Amino acid sequence: MPDLPATPTLADFQSYVSEMERERGFASQTVKDKCLLLGEEIGELFKAIRKAEGLAMDPQSQVGEIGDELADVFIYLCALANRFDLNLEQAFLDKETKNKQRKWQ
Amino acid sequence: MPDLPATPTLADFQSYVSEMERERGFASQTVKDKCLLLGEEIGELFKAIRKAEGLAMDPQSQVGEIGDELADVFIYLCALANRFDLNLEQAFLDKETKNKQRKWQ
Amino acid sequence: MPDLPATPTLADFQSYVSEMERERGFASQTVKDKCLLLGEEIGELFKAIRKAEGLAMDPQSQVGEIGDELADVFIYLCALANRFDLNLEQAFLDKETKNKQRKWQ
Amino acid sequence: MPDLPATPTLADFQSYVSEMERERGFASQTVKDKCLLLGEEIGELFKAIRKAEGLAMDPQSQVGEIGDELADVFIYLCALANRFDLNLEQAFLDKETKNKQRKWQ
Repeated sequence: MPDLPATPTLADFQSYVSEMERERGFASQTVKDKCLLLGEEIGELFKAIRKAEGLAMDPQSQVGEIGDELADVFIYLCALANRFDLNLEQAFLDKETKNKQRKWQ
Repeated sequence: MPDLPATPTLADFQSYVSEMERERGFASQTVKDKCLLLGEEIGELFKAIRKAEGLAMDPQSQVGEIGDELADVFIYLCALANRFDLNLEQAFLDKETKNKQRKWQ
Repeated sequence: MPDLPATPTLADFQSYVSEMERERGFASQTVKDKCLLLGEEIGELFKAIRKAEGLAMDPQSQVGEIGDELADVFIYLCALANRFDLNLEQAFLDKETKNKQRKWQ
Repeated sequence: MPDLPATPTLADFQSYVSEMERERGFASQTVKDKCLLLGEEIGELFKAIRKAEGLAMDPQSQVGEIGDELADVFIYLCALANRFDLNLEQAFLDKETKNKQRKWQ
């Protein structure tokens, strides 16, 4: 099973996800498959948040924990970044450089 | 402006996002606002991936870089985790403990 | 319970959804609530499609029928159109007028 | 160019979309492609709603009209229903039969 160091960086998480996918047979899933899965997890995250926000729920439907759903979304982010050979940390730094120039009204 | 240490952990990113939101006036945005924004960024990520995958595009529409869109989704993940006082690293470890028990067919 | 005429138009569906929401206590849900719900249903649609496409599934997780999920997404489209006093049929005609001018490469 | 009758039903819209896709070269797009496009349009719908809801916007980014984005989401619903030989009207009736039995708390 893949391991994470004590204070893992984004690169450590990306390597973990890469190895995890090989072990669980997900490595062959395409970029489009991962987008489908990511969209699914976003829906599950919204559902967990809906429950936390006190919106009406069908008591019979499965609702995950917000932490679990955030983690699943993060896993698919790493999986997509890996498929495009992107370093999430560098992508964050680059986007923040752009975001600092932007104005919001 | 917030700073990131040399080898930032997920907790460092969450603190950075928290400070960044205060500086740019986003701290008052609600959980539902952040879900709307997250859904928007997922759409932009899908669009950037669509272009990379060679699907037909309207040459006049704005298309972001995949790295930028992954970074934006990650920022909103941190923003949502912060609003629920969740540690993303711990959420990842907890979910992986569950995922290791699961079967996929 | 609301009814639909024999050959319902989009306007008939929008009226049905409006009445249905009143009866089930959803009329007070805000636009942002409906977006959260729409995002959730998109995730469930993706999950049903994932299963149909033969992607690996956790046999223990609930998976809906594609028709059911398409219907739920359509219901939320009507609910959002109603909240902005938009006629979906007119919106369709207007957008197709624009789409006919567009080029895709 | 495809046409719609005076008071089009959901089946009329599905036929229109089917013919429109052939004319514009989209008929070969797969189910997963359509999910990617649907996710993209949901993001654009959320962005248009964000603007209408008065949330901070980057004045330089493209924002569509809510009616246009609702129409685009509806088009992709029809395109997905067509690819699974599903009649949206029947799917709506079937799901409402189920929804009437459900409780929300």
